[in-house]
Amino acid sequence: MATPSPTRPRRLLPLSLGLFQGALLLFFALFVTYDKPSAQAEDASLVAIQLYGIFPLFQDIQVMLVVGLGLLLTFLPHYGLSALTHNFLLLNFSTQWALVLQGLLHHFRHGQVHLDLHNLLTAEFAAVTVLISVGAVLGRTSPCQLLVVAACEVPVYLASEWAIVSRLGVLDVGGTITIHVFSCYFGLGVSKALFGAVQQPVHPKETPTHRSDLMSLVGTLILWVFWPSFVAVLCQPGDAQHRAILNTFLAMSAGAVTTVVASSLLESDGKLSPGHLQNGSLAGGVAIGAVADMTMPPVAALALGSLSAVVCVLGFRFLTPLLVRKLALRDQCGIHNLHGLPGILGAVASTVAVLVAPKDTSGQALWQALGLVVAIGGSLLAGLLTGVALWLPCLARPPERLCFDDSLYFKIQDQKTRI
Amino acid sequence: MATPSPTRPRRLLPLSLGLFQGALLLFFALFVTYDKPSAQAEDASLVAIQLYGIFPLFQDIQVMLVVGLGLLLTFLPHYGLSALTHNFLLLNFSTQWALVLQGLLHHFRHGQVHLDLHNLLTAEFAAVTVLISVGAVLGRTSPCQLLVVAACEVPVYLASEWAIVSRLGVLDVGGTITIHVFSCYFGLGVSKALFGAVQQPVHPKETPTHRSDLMSLVGTLILWVFWPSFVAVLCQPGDAQHRAILNTFLAMSAGAVTTVVASSLLESDGKLSPGHLQNGSLAGGVAIGAVADMTMPPVAALALGSLSAVVCVLGFRFLTPLLVRKLALRDQCGIHNLHGLPGILGAVASTVAVLVAPKDTSGQALWQALGLVVAIGGSLLAGLLTGVALWLPCLARPPERLCFDDSLYFKIQDQKTRI
Amino acid sequence: MATPSPTRPRRLLPLSLGLFQGALLLFFALFVTYDKPSAQAEDASLVAIQLYGIFPLFQDIQVMLVVGLGLLLTFLPHYGLSALTHNFLLLNFSTQWALVLQGLLHHFRHGQVHLDLHNLLTAEFAAVTVLISVGAVLGRTSPCQLLVVAACEVPVYLASEWAIVSRLGVLDVGGTITIHVFSCYFGLGVSKALFGAVQQPVHPKETPTHRSDLMSLVGTLILWVFWPSFVAVLCQPGDAQHRAILNTFLAMSAGAVTTVVASSLLESDGKLSPGHLQNGSLAGGVAIGAVADMTMPPVAALALGSLSAVVCVLGFRFLTPLLVRKLALRDQCGIHNLHGLPGILGAVASTVAVLVAPKDTSGQALWQALGLVVAIGGSLLAGLLTGVALWLPCLARPPERLCFDDSLYFKIQDQKTRI
Repeated sequence: MATPSPTRPRRLLPLSLGLFQGALLLFFALFVTYDKPSAQAEDASLVAIQLYGIFPLFQDIQVMLVVGLGLLLTFLPHYGLSALTHNFLLLNFSTQWALVLQGLLHHFRHGQVHLDLHNLLTAEFAAVTVLISVGAVLGRTSPCQLLVVAACEVPVYLASEWAIVSRLGVLDVGGTITIHVFSCYFGLGVSKALFGAVQQPVHPKETPTHRSDLMSLVGTLILWVFWPSFVAVLCQPGDAQHRAILNTFLAMSAGAVTTVVASSLLESDGKLSPGHLQNGSLAGGVAIGAVADMTMPPVAALALGSLSAVVCVLGFRFLTPLLVRKLALRDQCGIHNLHGLPGILGAVASTVAVLVAPKDTSGQALWQALGLVVAIGGSLLAGLLTGVALWLPCLARPPERLCFDDSLYFKIQDQKTRI
Repeated sequence: MATPSPTRPRRLLPLSLGLFQGALLLFFALFVTYDKPSAQAEDASLVAIQLYGIFPLFQDIQVMLVVGLGLLLTFLPHYGLSALTHNFLLLNFSTQWALVLQGLLHHFRHGQVHLDLHNLLTAEFAAVTVLISVGAVLGRTSPCQLLVVAACEVPVYLASEWAIVSRLGVLDVGGTITIHVFSCYFGLGVSKALFGAVQQPVHPKETPTHRSDLMSLVGTLILWVFWPSFVAVLCQPGDAQHRAILNTFLAMSAGAVTTVVASSLLESDGKLSPGHLQNGSLAGGVAIGAVADMTMPPVAALALGSLSAVVCVLGFRFLTPLLVRKLALRDQCGIHNLHGLPGILGAVASTVAVLVAPKDTSGQALWQALGLVVAIGGSLLAGLLTGVALWLPCLARPPERLCFDDSLYFKIQDQKTRI
Repeated sequence: MATPSPTRPRRLLPLSLGLFQGALLLFFALFVTYDKPSAQAEDASLVAIQLYGIFPLFQDIQVMLVVGLGLLLTFLPHYGLSALTHNFLLLNFSTQWALVLQGLLHHFRHGQVHLDLHNLLTAEFAAVTVLISVGAVLGRTSPCQLLVVAACEVPVYLASEWAIVSRLGVLDVGGTITIHVFSCYFGLGVSKALFGAVQQPVHPKETPTHRSDLMSLVGTLILWVFWPSFVAVLCQPGDAQHRAILNTFLAMSAGAVTTVVASSLLESDGKLSPGHLQNGSLAGGVAIGAVADMTMPPVAALALGSLSAVVCVLGFRFLTPLLVRKLALRDQCGIHNLHGLPGILGAVASTVAVLVAPKDTSGQALWQALGLVVAIGGSLLAGLLTGVALWLPCLARPPERLCFDDSLYFKIQDQKTRI
């Protein structure tokens, strides 16, 4: 299929990415080094045991982001290669970019940045926000536009995370507020600014098929399995980490069952919607993040998981159509239902949890609520500004008729079959 | 496609599931708590190291059950969404149900149930029996019927496991007898009681396609990779666990090669049957469970793996058609070949293994054999009774022409393509 | 579809495999045992902690080889079952064969071979070389031919690895030279000797479809995620292992981004080639193996990853067509671009790395270079000889028109649909 895009914008992606890799090399050459090897055998053994503790969880999270999230996004039947590839590219670009910025901002000690697995993990968390945000505009944006989103969102996230966690002292070990709520409203801001107030009819390639729904559900299941690792990886080792794993499991298990209940009740013939399952099953994991390591009774995790699944499914059923009608707000993957609403619920839960804690923590409850406000306000504003930047013609936004189609970005040899 | 089911039964699933979640919340609120945090730093470090030992294996098992087993069941080309979703729902429902029952039965101490990762794991093992059993009736049962199976099977399993392991002292670290044999005959009992003596012709949607066979084989490979974690997770840490991992690997590796040999020899043109590969490759893992941690020479693991693969493939080729002809016994996934025959083989192997052990253990050999008898007898009886319960009209058994079809349970937007 | 092969060769595969399993049983019965259980509790605890360190990485590598590599090979749309199954069979056969040979060659102590997870891992590394090599002849070879390749390659690999690592003292913790370079030239030798100088036109079933490209890309992503485990598993625990993980991650991340740059720049319309992505993203992992645990600045890992991705993509674009034209050299999966060129690059990098190290290591640099020469020379020669053996008529090489087709080896019930 001939594409109308002229050649020049087609070169912008590789050239800007290449430039970025060059700058990254330069930055690493000048500033980044590894920690000094441990001098004593005892320290070396300690390093080994710490590694055994963190590395399997790191790998779990990598599987979630690269394979699980990638597959979840393949629900668009003609856009699977783009979904997987753009997700993979954005993860790598954003992680590298976050490493640079983190290095510059936080870790500048003695003129050298010391790189370890912990740095890498926090950089990857910054990348997660980008992967979530772009869900709002999946299929209608060019890779260049997505890279601009990543370039803008990572520094805003780092600033927001610093303000919320370091300055306000908000408790949020699983990133409910700092990652999920933040990235949701950033993405919605981008979408609003980019697509404006024009409602468009449903695109013929936008409808999932049986097969693409199945692939996407496999992605959900992979994310569901490894979510406890995501929430628990940065917890204090020992009891708190153990509790975070159990709470996350309980919330996700209750959320999975409740999703079936809610989805089935909402349809007149009691059938399940694949989209509800793909998202609702994960809502519990989003909500639990802010309270996962707190000493609360296990029933709270179950209740929070159930409630967030209900909220997520209701969001898909009622809120998304409403936002389309009233605000002309596009949200292709429904990130508001999976990350926004359950994230807010989790933030409210964390406020309640610190309020009912035995010691006087009414101050902390205030900070939790304030953190939520900062996350929403900051991300929405920054997202809107970023969305405006995406209007730049050189970013080669795909024309409507070529949206949701891999053949715009990939050389596909055999055109007959699609996922 | 219009379905003839009236609205009322369509509400039974969400309402009963919702009720169950409510009861679970109540139970957790009243009775369940976490262990107290470790008082001393030394204990905390011990908790952390124990967690590093068990958590990666727990995640492996989650991948097996949610992704691996789910994909294995997608060999029915029009039933992939149902297979994945019902498997996922049953896992969560049964685990929660087992947590409740285990709590009531075993862990009632000081009025509170203490929840930890070990509890969760044993509850999940109870759920595994349900996931295996329903393989016998896959595609011809409604979700409500499957939940009734789960509701009945979990308590019977817990009683059976208590009798076999705690009372008889049967050695079965990998669940060969308590999980595989038990769940197989439970499932066959359900199938017999539910479908009666009527032979039905092959359903047009029952035949796997190239594509669905491929997806299913990916599921097999995932199960194959992580099986050592399943067998070894509850072993004594150290040498016994190391041995269990090695024995399981050897059995599964020999089983994989032998499956190719057996499947190829059984066909006149030497071609392989995808169904043989999907199941035979895993038979070694089923059989090795009862002896995996015993001090036996490695050759025993190889021999047991090879033998169980042969038995599994022979079962598919000769026994399954015979059972259909003589007993009109349906076994959609061939659980008798994968879990029944290799499980019995493993139980016999464990009897022999304790007999030839250096110290006098003829008493133990008797218990191993008795455990097998209890597992088969108890599960068959309970399965038959459960199958009778599935005749209840409100459970909405699908009519024959709508079997094996996702569109009965899912809102599928684009009907054109199937897996 | 009727196949012209007579019955006899169809029996060769199961009979020879069955014979091999029998011989393996005999060998294990006579010679193989487990380590004695640790006598003291302190030792047992040490065994447990060592196991926690190595087992999760072992499982990661299993996922890579069985699931990741298997899926990567499903890019041939009609050959997915064969690709997955032959890969799985070869892995098991070669690992068992390597266990036998390693046992005979290295571990013969006190008349008994002691088996542990470490042995298993090194045997699996031997199997990896086979899995890589057969990529050159994927789709045009029978399973019998593939087993002959495995039977020949494993002993040659063990000899080569012994010569390179034990005699020359080459540093190569991630197998860049001993595994990747070796297996690449072995495979190319096999291909050259087997297919001779005849250029054949493109086979109609050789072209990937959108769907098969997507499955293959999922395989790439799985390999990408777990590659750090492959490189780091045999490192010294502690700092060196930590460094190896970080270096591998950096190389692969830079390689992923650079692949997009290179692939996009090489096409006139800036589109990406799925084949470039599937392979180029992994090139960094191949190249980094020889230097991953050395004390070099992180920028070196980034640079090596980028460079190897460029080399890999350029290889696909220019070198592969050239080799076809000039040498009539077939390389179905492009192993020369993924394993050969990046492997050589990594070997050169290791030479440079030891040269610029602070202490005088010019001798070591010489050994690194010599190791590369030995790996290429030995493997090419042995591969050519092996390829000649594949001409044996009893090995049942598939006729051209039946190449790339699962129906030659599998009983497929429903012929309508393909991946």
